[in-house]
Amino acid sequence: MLSKSQISLIKSLQLKKYRKSHKLFIVEGIKSITEFFNEDYTLHSLYYLPELSSKVLNFLDKIKGIEVSSQDLKKISALTNPQGALALFQIPDHKLEPSKITDKFYFVLDFIQDPGNLGTIIRTVDWFGMDMLICSDDTTDAYSPKVVQASMGSLARVKVIYCDLKTLLTETEVKIYAATLDGNSIYETDFQQGGLIVLGNEGNGIRSEIERFIQKKITIPRNGKAESLNVAISSAIICSEISRKIKKT
Amino acid sequence: MLSKSQISLIKSLQLKKYRKSHKLFIVEGIKSITEFFNEDYTLHSLYYLPELSSKVLNFLDKIKGIEVSSQDLKKISALTNPQGALALFQIPDHKLEPSKITDKFYFVLDFIQDPGNLGTIIRTVDWFGMDMLICSDDTTDAYSPKVVQASMGSLARVKVIYCDLKTLLTETEVKIYAATLDGNSIYETDFQQGGLIVLGNEGNGIRSEIERFIQKKITIPRNGKAESLNVAISSAIICSEISRKIKKT
Repeated sequence: MLSKSQISLIKSLQLKKYRKSHKLFIVEGIKSITEFFNEDYTLHSLYYLPELSSKVLNFLDKIKGIEVSSQDLKKISALTNPQGALALFQIPDHKLEPSKITDKFYFVLDFIQDPGNLGTIIRTVDWFGMDMLICSDDTTDAYSPKVVQASMGSLARVKVIYCDLKTLLTETEVKIYAATLDGNSIYETDFQQGGLIVLGNEGNGIRSEIERFIQKKITIPRNGKAESLNVAISSAIICSEISRKIKKT
Repeated sequence: MLSKSQISLIKSLQLKKYRKSHKLFIVEGIKSITEFFNEDYTLHSLYYLPELSSKVLNFLDKIKGIEVSSQDLKKISALTNPQGALALFQIPDHKLEPSKITDKFYFVLDFIQDPGNLGTIIRTVDWFGMDMLICSDDTTDAYSPKVVQASMGSLARVKVIYCDLKTLLTETEVKIYAATLDGNSIYETDFQQGGLIVLGNEGNGIRSEIERFIQKKITIPRNGKAESLNVAISSAIICSEISRKIKKT
């Protein structure tokens, strides 16, 4: 049985300001919960349907889980079709150390607004083994239920770091790339040293205050007529291109 | 001023069965409307805010447009923020001729369910110059407002053809590829002759009745830990890989 205060806490976490004040976020579904648990995220609480009790035993070593009815689960779930289990985890406090970025490539997202795009980018960089994603402070929150859902568990492994991009780009010593419509072909870019790759906002691209830090513009060559590519699609194509070139060396 | 029957016709087109019976679909925003118009889609009707009257002059040679208030536009729009103009176009009757598929690559979607994924795939293949997309009869409808929106006008240029995949794959003479988790690396696949590339459903992959037609499985090599990639992301990476290889020859 859920108390009113439990319901109100969980529902509040659909909003960023309450996630920030409570330092908690929602993960739904046994599979995703297991991924965060295995990556040492701190489990705060767990709500599950009785029929899943055998599947949550692992978690119950750490905390006292709460069996709920499917009606109660509907009340707290952010999904149209709740997935049988909902957990709250602590939001980790990932800190960026600019000096650590040396030989690898990482994306820098300049004001990405769509949660589905951010979640898909997290899932994609995880596939390609990038363990960090850097976001402008005003990029959509990675711990919102929609992003967690779209990342399909990958948020557990990819450190998403929010920071002031101007400070970061001023301090970093690695090469700063950006995906634009007027750069060099990614097929002719060697991607050997490591660096940061800036991706701009869905509608407006990279902001001018960020553009001035760019050292190398790169472009996915177009054969057809679409005006642009979706930002998550661009990130994936660039990931693949880097990956194929690094494999070769 | 909109009549009740106009409102009811337009709203009905949010559902596939009415799009099918009326052979009409909705396009919103001057930019997208222009793209369909320029590709010779037959304009059936046009509703626009008075302040856009100078921008719709082109279209008014063909049909009598109807000025509407923003309240009326809200009633007929499928968008949270209507874009000032809404048009109905005739759904074209694209027919597949299997013998025409020879030296190019085309995707074959096996039961893609998410409209956002389908729209993004249409936009991506348009970027790379693929002018056709083949879908199983039960793939989500390309003329739904969500797909039209996500395709960002590219649906005007990419022929989306729905057909019985078993018949198509039985009759085609080109090589049949499929994106799977256990195939050859795309980086080591030459993509020289042309062929069909099957992409499976978001949750369940390629159906077994389709799997038996596959001649070559291809895989996007993974360095990290995500279990899978989003289907639109996979299509984009494969498009880029084909594009870079074809450019080289």
